[in-house]
Amino acid sequence: MNVLLVYAHPEPRSLNGALRDFSIARLEKSGHAVQVSDLYAMNWKASLDASDSVTPPIGERFDPSLDSKHAFENGLQSEDIALEQQKLLWADTVILQFPLWWFSMPAILKGWVERVYAYGFAYGVGEHSDARWGDRYGEGTLAGKRAMLIVTTGGWESHYGPRGINGPIDDILFPIHHGILYYPGFDVLPPFVIYQTGKMDEARYTATCDTLGQRLDNLWAVPPIPFHPQNAGAYEIPALTLRDDIAPGKAGFAAHLG
Amino acid sequence: MNVLLVYAHPEPRSLNGALRDFSIARLEKSGHAVQVSDLYAMNWKASLDASDSVTPPIGERFDPSLDSKHAFENGLQSEDIALEQQKLLWADTVILQFPLWWFSMPAILKGWVERVYAYGFAYGVGEHSDARWGDRYGEGTLAGKRAMLIVTTGGWESHYGPRGINGPIDDILFPIHHGILYYPGFDVLPPFVIYQTGKMDEARYTATCDTLGQRLDNLWAVPPIPFHPQNAGAYEIPALTLRDDIAPGKAGFAAHLG
Repeated sequence: MNVLLVYAHPEPRSLNGALRDFSIARLEKSGHAVQVSDLYAMNWKASLDASDSVTPPIGERFDPSLDSKHAFENGLQSEDIALEQQKLLWADTVILQFPLWWFSMPAILKGWVERVYAYGFAYGVGEHSDARWGDRYGEGTLAGKRAMLIVTTGGWESHYGPRGINGPIDDILFPIHHGILYYPGFDVLPPFVIYQTGKMDEARYTATCDTLGQRLDNLWAVPPIPFHPQNAGAYEIPALTLRDDIAPGKAGFAAHLG
Repeated sequence: MNVLLVYAHPEPRSLNGALRDFSIARLEKSGHAVQVSDLYAMNWKASLDASDSVTPPIGERFDPSLDSKHAFENGLQSEDIALEQQKLLWADTVILQFPLWWFSMPAILKGWVERVYAYGFAYGVGEHSDARWGDRYGEGTLAGKRAMLIVTTGGWESHYGPRGINGPIDDILFPIHHGILYYPGFDVLPPFVIYQTGKMDEARYTATCDTLGQRLDNLWAVPPIPFHPQNAGAYEIPALTLRDDIAPGKAGFAAHLG
């Protein structure tokens, strides 16, 4: 199996760096091929702008969607973007590993998503009309692949519990799981979250690696999060609201789980 | 009143650019002083790293929190960071304006948060013990100020409704409202969200400006989102879970609203 690890931490001699090295070794020992996009080491350009195409904007002004579409369709994307898209197409499983900063991914990784997820590649795929709203949320270019987050945070697990002050971790990660990974087609595995990173001693690190190793050994066995696909009948189109008989009476992120 | 507008769009001749210019003019016409941080125009550095301090890391390796603390306490922060902190201290109200990209803020704005929100400035403020978990979520450096989002998105309002496929807009914005704005002390106003930006004609643009203008005229009159403060009794400390008698039986983001 081919695994792409997209990794975003500025210090290689960190807990994240150690877990990255552990993951690569474990996956390779199991016979998988691993590529790593180490965004800080690559000096990844975080901000989406007109220079993401090797030609000037096609209209009078830069349009993030239309210029992305034109560049993607005509082989005019910046080379760093095209290379990451090739890695995504090569991968059977994609892992995003990052520290939770201000309740989301670090800017450098968000910028990877924004720039690599071109129009025609990750969105704007398939028919777009009032009868069909594209191939997305369960369909799309990356359908058939799996994705998983490895996330570290300094807070306690209770702070991210159902009534924890930060909000439930599943809800905090929903915009990434559903909006960034499920959207272009990935099957999304439950995340591997490490809490209280400031309290990591050797025993806890060993136990963490044991658990993470088991997750990595079972990438293909773990059932994905059962989000409703957009185009299989659960949603009214084009309103894109859940049909009345699906999760009746429920609202919010959790209503989109089958 | 002093208003800081932090603005993140790469093209000034865009809908976002027009709404920014409208907002500045409206606020100034009402007698407010306005500063704008136009992140793309400033070529804002998005990625947090060791160069955010003018001295090398204090330990053997770069630690994002500890090095931020050291730089903030000792006047060793990169100048761009210190300047933005001065603007935040100057402001009575802060507006973040951005297009919703992949269900969050653009990377360049996320990187503004990560770098400007130094340890000792936006987090790590106040006593941290098992009896008190810092001055945050309603208290902190920016307490007494107000904040509001102006957000544009191509999707329909129904797609972001209670049962819409993208998830409710209030839940999508919760990590920003609660986790980025309420955390260091802001009172957070309801957001101003513009849907279906691809269908903007002159009549709709005029109506949008009318509504936005009223919101800007009433920045001090609108009641903020009633999040529970961390340190006023609603939460058990240090577990930081809602007390049983607060929003009994409720879980998720909405439970943190009073």
